[in-house]
Amino acid sequence: MTLSVAVLGASGFAGAELLRLLEGHPNMQVVAAAASAQVGRSVADAYPALGSVADMHFCTVDEALDAGADLVFSSLPHTASMDLFADKDDAKIIDLAGDFRLNEADRYAQWYGEAHANPRSLGAWQYGLTEFNRQGVTGADKVANPGCYPTAALLALLPLIQAGAIDAGRIHVDAKSGISGAGRAGGEGFDYSSVNESLAPYSVTGHKHIAEMEEQISATAGKPVQITFIPHLVPMTRGLLATCIADAVDEPDDDALHDVLARSYKDEPFVRVLSAQHLPKTKRLSGTNDAEVCVRVDQRTGKVFAFAAIDNLVKGAAGQAVQNANLMCGLPETAGLDLNPCLP
Amino acid sequence: MTLSVAVLGASGFAGAELLRLLEGHPNMQVVAAAASAQVGRSVADAYPALGSVADMHFCTVDEALDAGADLVFSSLPHTASMDLFADKDDAKIIDLAGDFRLNEADRYAQWYGEAHANPRSLGAWQYGLTEFNRQGVTGADKVANPGCYPTAALLALLPLIQAGAIDAGRIHVDAKSGISGAGRAGGEGFDYSSVNESLAPYSVTGHKHIAEMEEQISATAGKPVQITFIPHLVPMTRGLLATCIADAVDEPDDDALHDVLARSYKDEPFVRVLSAQHLPKTKRLSGTNDAEVCVRVDQRTGKVFAFAAIDNLVKGAAGQAVQNANLMCGLPETAGLDLNPCLP
Amino acid sequence: MTLSVAVLGASGFAGAELLRLLEGHPNMQVVAAAASAQVGRSVADAYPALGSVADMHFCTVDEALDAGADLVFSSLPHTASMDLFADKDDAKIIDLAGDFRLNEADRYAQWYGEAHANPRSLGAWQYGLTEFNRQGVTGADKVANPGCYPTAALLALLPLIQAGAIDAGRIHVDAKSGISGAGRAGGEGFDYSSVNESLAPYSVTGHKHIAEMEEQISATAGKPVQITFIPHLVPMTRGLLATCIADAVDEPDDDALHDVLARSYKDEPFVRVLSAQHLPKTKRLSGTNDAEVCVRVDQRTGKVFAFAAIDNLVKGAAGQAVQNANLMCGLPETAGLDLNPCLP
Amino acid sequence: MTLSVAVLGASGFAGAELLRLLEGHPNMQVVAAAASAQVGRSVADAYPALGSVADMHFCTVDEALDAGADLVFSSLPHTASMDLFADKDDAKIIDLAGDFRLNEADRYAQWYGEAHANPRSLGAWQYGLTEFNRQGVTGADKVANPGCYPTAALLALLPLIQAGAIDAGRIHVDAKSGISGAGRAGGEGFDYSSVNESLAPYSVTGHKHIAEMEEQISATAGKPVQITFIPHLVPMTRGLLATCIADAVDEPDDDALHDVLARSYKDEPFVRVLSAQHLPKTKRLSGTNDAEVCVRVDQRTGKVFAFAAIDNLVKGAAGQAVQNANLMCGLPETAGLDLNPCLP
Repeated sequence: MTLSVAVLGASGFAGAELLRLLEGHPNMQVVAAAASAQVGRSVADAYPALGSVADMHFCTVDEALDAGADLVFSSLPHTASMDLFADKDDAKIIDLAGDFRLNEADRYAQWYGEAHANPRSLGAWQYGLTEFNRQGVTGADKVANPGCYPTAALLALLPLIQAGAIDAGRIHVDAKSGISGAGRAGGEGFDYSSVNESLAPYSVTGHKHIAEMEEQISATAGKPVQITFIPHLVPMTRGLLATCIADAVDEPDDDALHDVLARSYKDEPFVRVLSAQHLPKTKRLSGTNDAEVCVRVDQRTGKVFAFAAIDNLVKGAAGQAVQNANLMCGLPETAGLDLNPCLP
Repeated sequence: MTLSVAVLGASGFAGAELLRLLEGHPNMQVVAAAASAQVGRSVADAYPALGSVADMHFCTVDEALDAGADLVFSSLPHTASMDLFADKDDAKIIDLAGDFRLNEADRYAQWYGEAHANPRSLGAWQYGLTEFNRQGVTGADKVANPGCYPTAALLALLPLIQAGAIDAGRIHVDAKSGISGAGRAGGEGFDYSSVNESLAPYSVTGHKHIAEMEEQISATAGKPVQITFIPHLVPMTRGLLATCIADAVDEPDDDALHDVLARSYKDEPFVRVLSAQHLPKTKRLSGTNDAEVCVRVDQRTGKVFAFAAIDNLVKGAAGQAVQNANLMCGLPETAGLDLNPCLP
Repeated sequence: MTLSVAVLGASGFAGAELLRLLEGHPNMQVVAAAASAQVGRSVADAYPALGSVADMHFCTVDEALDAGADLVFSSLPHTASMDLFADKDDAKIIDLAGDFRLNEADRYAQWYGEAHANPRSLGAWQYGLTEFNRQGVTGADKVANPGCYPTAALLALLPLIQAGAIDAGRIHVDAKSGISGAGRAGGEGFDYSSVNESLAPYSVTGHKHIAEMEEQISATAGKPVQITFIPHLVPMTRGLLATCIADAVDEPDDDALHDVLARSYKDEPFVRVLSAQHLPKTKRLSGTNDAEVCVRVDQRTGKVFAFAAIDNLVKGAAGQAVQNANLMCGLPETAGLDLNPCLP
Repeated sequence: MTLSVAVLGASGFAGAELLRLLEGHPNMQVVAAAASAQVGRSVADAYPALGSVADMHFCTVDEALDAGADLVFSSLPHTASMDLFADKDDAKIIDLAGDFRLNEADRYAQWYGEAHANPRSLGAWQYGLTEFNRQGVTGADKVANPGCYPTAALLALLPLIQAGAIDAGRIHVDAKSGISGAGRAGGEGFDYSSVNESLAPYSVTGHKHIAEMEEQISATAGKPVQITFIPHLVPMTRGLLATCIADAVDEPDDDALHDVLARSYKDEPFVRVLSAQHLPKTKRLSGTNDAEVCVRVDQRTGKVFAFAAIDNLVKGAAGQAVQNANLMCGLPETAGLDLNPCLP
């Protein structure tokens, strides 16, 4: 089986990553690549290394949507796709932006700063954190791919919340991302010289991903909770680490909590639970759809530290999108995602 | 006035940084540079760019201590200097290691893994976080220079604790350091290719700097407290950021807490309190003795986020050591420390 | 068909890269991984991301040679393997070091600083620059994998020499390599902090790869020639660029010389000849077995500039080794090498 | 004596570097900083670390020229200042762009792609390669600051040409620069993620700096010569290395040529001639006005390799500009330039 695929936002970093992964996918074939600012440019000119799309040219979003693709990956900026898929019934859609990740339109308006154009459509979308919504995603028509930070933080936290091991009401997530998370068009301050050797926090109290994490954590905990979240940009291209701190319930030990993660992920193809000697390291999964997770108990204070590392552009974006697309279309979940990291 | 200076551990990163700063110091002159593993090697061979020490050769620690220097900067590994200065009364000493930072020998044994060789000597040392112990350091004979992480975390936190604005009993410090913090001889895993593009936590529950921070925070809070602390290594050479999360007391706002910091640091030559539009950025102070601090209130959750960025080798090591030495010797506090960062 | 494979030097960077590539190879299975300094260590502990070797432990070189493998990849240091394969007739061998790349034992002694232990064996080895010795490599028992610098320089130069377009007697190769070329155990000066933001030439007049390039260029030119060669280390992990300058024969133009390259490489799976708008960029082929080559005429001076970029650890080491192994064993040349670069 | 200074182009990288150096200059005080795209913005907002300009706002070029400064540093883009200083007689001017570096208007038109607006003015400008035109610069009113590549290449080559040791008619300069050389507004392809881990040549046959190097080399050689020149961008912020290859005259040896450089630079405050054990390393002079030069003979081929490393933004731009300004104004040549590199 070969599915035809359209990619919207193909000139951005997540779009480029989608093209890379689709190039190696045994059951998918890109038939249209939309990039509004580069319509008409040869795709081969932008990505000389990608053979399968060599004879294509970037098209408009409308052209891509009309290309008759079985599957649409949309990697447009937030709010751009709110209204785009209302009548699109002839293709399965994976949206990598934030427009369909929240269940409630009010919350969307609060965090995204404008009313949602299609509040009723929100219910039609599955939240694509595959490991925790595999059933919902399988066969679905519309999947909202999670944000990069939520992907990492939730992979670290949800099993511990499900097991009742931590207090979901007092969680802090301190996250660090490679600079590619800011996108290709970062603008002033994102040129190489300004970023290199510089580390900084940003969006300190109002990052949009908070809404997404709180919605998922609340659903898992069975009660509405708030978290604190501070993201940082790190001078590296790829990689994302979520460092999570929570209050322990009871008196846990390292082994017991490790077992919680190990049980939760024992059949997962993309989540590696690290044993006692290791801590996550972003490089070890760069370019892959893998996550590394682990947990430690701070015996002195009774706090639990949970960590998850991912490649923000793969498991945090394009890779998880392909993982979801595989399930939506009845393909093996790992198809096209058998990737090994370069070391070094 | 020109003081003669001996540097112990001159081939390490902090030692090299001391030589750089002393080269530009108007009142200090290096007369001995000890580097055990390189005794006899020309200093000019190791540091071709440093003119003032060009005709010196690395000597032993004993030779450096016998060189008749007015001032000794010791940048030896932890535990190496525990027993070194017991009878050294003819020079003022600044120790950059951890051996004399704690007040209590029991705590030293607990965190450093061995009994202190000179428990009685601990009381003779001043803790050299200059901004909070200026009186103690001025004219002192022995100063223990703070660790890099405590320097940043305490600069962010102590004014807020003094002002009663945060609960000292529930503080988390999430810290990120450039790789030079691991020293020149990092060993396996610290070569360029292994570090580049890799971010990772380390020493997750037992970093020695915890003891130092808890001792200082407890003293300021007037009660014994514990903190949680997670350090990370970031793929950059210099720079350190402490991201601190605490529970607010009362209902603070950004302006009120900013004023706490602004008042606390208004006459400080090396601490820059950032206003609302800015967050700390390590590059902006690389190579300087400056710190950037700021505070934000997370109104939704009532938490306070306090940040401090420093150059781990300058304000976090050699620069603060020179700042302390200036005060110990009656020099202007800023002598030799008028440094501007390279941008970019 | 599945071939059993032994890897010697499996803890070095080229060894790690071999393990990565072999993990994804449909017809090869690693059965032994030798790493002298880590005998007994779990391979999974060193490379947690590599599943296929997870239950192996590093063994000695002798054990690996006795493991009954069909194929041996040897990535030991120069001179270590001179004497190793003398009686090894039961496996095909690809050597990634320099011991069997030269035809003449005298030249080996001159450049490697010691007499070759098995001068007579040199004739038994094929030089594995696949694109120019495909016939020799196909079905061969012993292949000497080219050095990283010669691979790039020869890919840029040999077609132009074959076509008589440049004077083989006046060639300068100015080469730049990522730091992984120095190996994992780089030693002093190769830690992250010392390398980052530093660019330097090295081995300025006597790099061993000169011998290899001169031997191949002389053979192609049909006359003995000398070249000049200056290598540099660049602060990046992977990637290698050879910038070659030569005197033109006749009065060439860009199009004619581009055609020489285009014809030479038109059926090559791993060599991309860039057209006029592009110049090679190492990132575009990082992690892949691809080379990017191009040529420009400096009309003012009549000089020809030829460029080739590769990933030093893939086409410059492990990837080309797998490419050669495929041909030695009758597999498709591209088996296991269908790799796309991460962008960014 | 304190001179008032205006900086044009103060928001670019060279402009920022001028502000940093002027902040530490004992005899200069910035009174106006022009940045066309940011007129009205607080300088402190752009550069929080620079105290001396904290209360200034960016102004227009015209305002800066009318500010009554004794000295104007112009760091505008090429061609922007061609017509700017025609009637400016009340201040000394150092231009960091390329508009006044060439002696001949025809050559300007050929390399810069448009006719020079003030061809007659060219004769009024001194070429500010200080070490080779100290007499011309001293007391001059108008100095054209050399390009970054010519600065490095000429420092390596001119002494050898003056001494008749190399054939000026056959020189190749292979140069590598940190990315800050491309300026702050690099545009597409200059964001961090695109640059990191990527090395590439650019402007392969037509870089404007060729004209400048040929003019100076020809003047020194006493005959018109052409060179070949290939620049590369290296993934680091600062640093520039010129690797020069030339034919030797006679049969030189390393010692003799080293002596040529050593004699030429023996009284120079900013040029370090490296002895046999060392090769230039950009990090060793990062942030300083220093150059490291050395020479090697390739005995096998009779070629001479000459190297020079500088910080492209200091000796290659702002630092050399201050060095020239000092001489123009009768100040000590090293005033404000006593800078030590950070190591690491």
